[in-house]
Parts: sequence; C-alpha cells; structure tokens
Amino acid sequence: MSRFLASISVTLKPTVNDPEGLTITSALHNLGFSGVAGVRSGKLFEVTIEATSSEEAQSLAEEMCTRLLANPVMERYSCRIAPEEQT
Amino acid sequence: MSRFLASISVTLKPTVNDPEGLTITSALHNLGFSGVAGVRSGKLFEVTIEATSSEEAQSLAEEMCTRLLANPVMERYSCRIAPEEQT
Repeated sequence: MSRFLASISVTLKPTVNDPEGLTITSALHNLGFSGVAGVRSGKLFEVTIEATSSEEAQSLAEEMCTRLLANPVMERYSCRIAPEEQT
Repeated sequence: MSRFLASISVTLKPTVNDPEGLTITSALHNLGFSGVAGVRSGKLFEVTIEATSSEEAQSLAEEMCTRLLANPVMERYSCRIAPEEQT
C-alpha cells in the first residue's frame, strides 16, 4: 500500500450564480486590480489515500466526490492524484 | 492583452487545526472509505485576469493573495496560471 495525495477541487457549474465570486471580484476592483474579469469560488480537499495504485486512488477519489464531497446538481469536480510528498 | 485563468488555492498551514477536514475524514470513514488517512480543506479561486504576459498575471495573482484572498498567519497559497480556455 502506498500513500497518494488526491487534490479534489469542487466548483460551481458555470451556469450557477456565484455570489461569493461576485463579491470577491468587486473587492479586487476596489483594491485597484482592474484587470480582473471575474472570479469563481470553489472548495479544495486534499485527501491522503492509502491505495495499491494511483488508478485505485483516482477511482476512490471520484467515488468520494459523487457520494459526499460534491453536489452533482450544482457543482463539478476534478481530482488530481500524486504520490504523497513528505510535508 | 490576453486573458489568463489563475487557479489560486488557499489552504490552512499544516500546523493549524482543521475541524472541517477532521469532520470530512470521519464522514468518509463512516461511508466505508477506510483508506483515507486524512483530509485538509481549503478554498479555490479561479480568477480571470487580463494581462500582457503570464508573468504579469502570476505576479498580480500573488499580490491578490497577500492583499485579500489569504490570511498569511494561518494560510498558505499557491497560484497556477494558464491561458484562458473557452468554457
């Protein structure tokens, strides 16, 4: 068994209104960042998984997304798997 | 001016307690994901930036982190810049 770090990002679908992102966009404009065209906010989960292969870790991570971490009606997710580095 | 997509992830420093991550770890164990060794939660911001080069976009993104998006006492951040794809 090896340890893998799954970086799971969960973001709202593009068609879903994102008030947090709009607020951050406005705040960045007020701070002088006039080049900001838009902000979408999301969640990030770094999951340490014990698995025999990165393929198994990937499939476990995707199952976690569908069963707990993401709301498939409003959100989409992506998972990146990497061997765990020492932190 | 080109458009770049900055994927900014903001996570708690490893030494900072993360109750949300602990709760998710426990929930995943209850769902049968026994291979989960730990979860750290964080935030993700996808910022669309108009800039002349990816280097300028990178430096703008890092300035946004230090001035608004991250709390440097408790959090660390990383920025990845990519040319904007059509969505």
